Amino acid sequence: MMQENKIIIAGAGLVGSLLSIYLSKRGYQVQLFERRPDMRKEAISAGRSINLALSDRGIKALEEVGLIEEIRKICIPMHGRYLHNADGTTAFQPYGKEGQFINSVSRGELNKKLMDLAEHHGAEIHFSEMCKHIDWQKGEIHFENALNHKVQTVPFNRCFGSDGAYSAARLTHQLQHDRFQYQQYYIDFGYKELCIPPADNGGFQLEKNALHIWPRGNYMLIALPNMDGSFTCTLFFPFEGDPSFASLDTNEKVRSFFNSTFTDASALMPTLEEDFFHNPTASLVTVKCYPWVREDRFALIGDAAHAIVPFFGQGMNCGFEDCSVLNGLIDKHAGNWSAIFAEYQQLRKPDADAIADLALNNFVEMRDKVADPKFLLQKKIEAAFSKKHPDKWIPAYSQVTFSPHIRYSEALVNGRRQEAIMQEIMSIPGIESKWETGEIETLILQKIKG
Amino acid sequence: MMQENKIIIAGAGLVGSLLSIYLSKRGYQVQLFERRPDMRKEAISAGRSINLALSDRGIKALEEVGLIEEIRKICIPMHGRYLHNADGTTAFQPYGKEGQFINSVSRGELNKKLMDLAEHHGAEIHFSEMCKHIDWQKGEIHFENALNHKVQTVPFNRCFGSDGAYSAARLTHQLQHDRFQYQQYYIDFGYKELCIPPADNGGFQLEKNALHIWPRGNYMLIALPNMDGSFTCTLFFPFEGDPSFASLDTNEKVRSFFNSTFTDASALMPTLEEDFFHNPTASLVTVKCYPWVREDRFALIGDAAHAIVPFFGQGMNCGFEDCSVLNGLIDKHAGNWSAIFAEYQQLRKPDADAIADLALNNFVEMRDKVADPKFLLQKKIEAAFSKKHPDKWIPAYSQVTFSPHIRYSEALVNGRRQEAIMQEIMSIPGIESKWETGEIETLILQKIKG
Repeated sequence: MMQENKIIIAGAGLVGSLLSIYLSKRGYQVQLFERRPDMRKEAISAGRSINLALSDRGIKALEEVGLIEEIRKICIPMHGRYLHNADGTTAFQPYGKEGQFINSVSRGELNKKLMDLAEHHGAEIHFSEMCKHIDWQKGEIHFENALNHKVQTVPFNRCFGSDGAYSAARLTHQLQHDRFQYQQYYIDFGYKELCIPPADNGGFQLEKNALHIWPRGNYMLIALPNMDGSFTCTLFFPFEGDPSFASLDTNEKVRSFFNSTFTDASALMPTLEEDFFHNPTASLVTVKCYPWVREDRFALIGDAAHAIVPFFGQGMNCGFEDCSVLNGLIDKHAGNWSAIFAEYQQLRKPDADAIADLALNNFVEMRDKVADPKFLLQKKIEAAFSKKHPDKWIPAYSQVTFSPHIRYSEALVNGRRQEAIMQEIMSIPGIESKWETGEIETLILQKIKG
Repeated sequence: MMQENKIIIAGAGLVGSLLSIYLSKRGYQVQLFERRPDMRKEAISAGRSINLALSDRGIKALEEVGLIEEIRKICIPMHGRYLHNADGTTAFQPYGKEGQFINSVSRGELNKKLMDLAEHHGAEIHFSEMCKHIDWQKGEIHFENALNHKVQTVPFNRCFGSDGAYSAARLTHQLQHDRFQYQQYYIDFGYKELCIPPADNGGFQLEKNALHIWPRGNYMLIALPNMDGSFTCTLFFPFEGDPSFASLDTNEKVRSFFNSTFTDASALMPTLEEDFFHNPTASLVTVKCYPWVREDRFALIGDAAHAIVPFFGQGMNCGFEDCSVLNGLIDKHAGNWSAIFAEYQQLRKPDADAIADLALNNFVEMRDKVADPKFLLQKKIEAAFSKKHPDKWIPAYSQVTFSPHIRYSEALVNGRRQEAIMQEIMSIPGIESKWETGEIETLILQKIKG
């Protein structure tokens, strides 16, 4: 028998766990089914998790369910990008205004904490249960246990697929849906997790409160701080060509490449060769699909609905914002789930598409443009203008990262308009010497008015 | 045991059948496995086949295997578009130069003939065999018989998936392939087959040697002649909205809509209501994917590799051209299948992408622009200029349809450049009265030089 308030969530990752908290707090009886074993009890193989950057959209959602204080305890503020240039120089670029920062947080630690809190709020989590099929019309979902291979059928009144970029829930949804729009797009780059351990005294070996980047044109290394003094490094690198994951095929080649290319980082990476060949090389996919819902019965959420590349640090934040938007719609439509799901996908689809495109674009910015003096000057001009006219100009990065009231789709449009204006400003002869003059300020003001 | 020259083809549609003829003639032992029963013995449910327009790319392939004379017997030449305007007027637009035409041919008749010829050349065709799985590494393909549900495993040295837009071979390929690029895109329009029967005396009730179009802005009806004097009509129409497949939900609404919208056609369609509610409403999908091949063992071909919408009449022609290109590469690489497959996908992928985009664009041209006097003038200016300077200007439609030596990807680029030039020409004040002057001719010549 189905119960009116019984909700099944496939996937107890970050978004599934947070969603269960929202729903449990509203009185729904929530069961989560997770493909992997309980990461709080068993060591999960690491090496595939880019450290996360929690920013204002994610924070807003965590605030709504009263979790932000708990989560802040495992966050390290990062106030800007700390650049390690090829010539050995370094530079610091603030992310936003004074006092604005993003937060480095371990995916595993955050997930464990959210699972604890989900159970605390009454949700049940079942582990090692793989989603095999969803019959949204009957209201039945089939799980196969990874250990004993037993298949169980669980009835539901409503079901969410929050099982990530390679969602099994999405696949079963897709196969039952006529005219399903679907796209998976892989970039020619993969990533690999590496490590900078704490100093002997337990301290940080690089500036703690920053996101470190070694931009090298076609590829880059980044490093985010962990609570224990270490940094999780991620190499974003071509699969093929020279240099690439394919070409660096011996310990010697790896160390030699790192010594010459990421000199200061290499010196801090004693286990580089081991990490390089032990950790997997992971892919980077963008998934766009539609529709996300089936009547009042089924909905995709988070990466399962819209997987994006990590270069804007928005994957988790976007998924958390999904939960927040959905929660607002449950209020608005007073439990009319047809209306809730219809407006949820209608609202979120353009925003998910926008952040997907912004994230792809940002790869070029991070790995290449941040090392270009002209680009840095452009950012400086924007920042100065924005400081003087905060109501007229919020830099695109800040709109996405620090302005949850601006939709991703709006940020994309605004950002393109700003970029067009800045291209004109940057083409003014002698801009390097006169950008702080009133002339330029007046010009930008005129261009904003159009 | 595998035999070196044993080739399996999944799908005995138009492309699979033609491919088997190419390969059989080269001495390969070819087995075709087809999901459906033998259409030469059992009546296949009709109503889902847009009549085909065989043009020069397809003809070139049929010539190469010596089949064109046989196929011409079931073709009806169409020399241009015959427009039935909303105001009751009609107009004829030639497709190309004097003597250039495309050919109306029944999908079913053509397929039957190709199957006969495939068997004649030594290929075996097995019917009612559904592809379930392909193990390209082992060289094994699994088929399930649709009648007795027995599964058989067939060994192969090489395997082709030519099983259409919803290819099972592609799905099994995709599921085994890391970083598979994939996109399926449905337009918001469906199509439905309708019929204009022959006249009582067996003759054609509309001009025989033309493709008839009733362009109505957002939608259209087309009609292609059949050998028996009938026309196969296809309504391309929105799924939702007003009017749409959803809104025309009674016999009376259908007839009334046709009477007022397609007046002359409606008068010739005695079984309209029956056809409308009996024939399925089919979807229109574009599929792009990559890679198409797996080492020297497996390749996708035809719609399975690149399904496109039918608005340029190129789906079959493109698939036949795949076969022709592949055949040329077997010569070039003297049976080195790694090299053959590698160059095959590298050559054909950009062309398949180009015709997919051209076909989507052509929907707007067919349903809307052909009824616009300004557009017709533009085509007239192009045609006149092209006639005078055939080496300098081949209209985009002709490049695609009548110029197999021009690649689709080149036609797309050339067409965009021409369109940009024509936009400038059409914006000249008074162009209507002076387009035949030397001034305009000189201007176009200058613009071509850039």
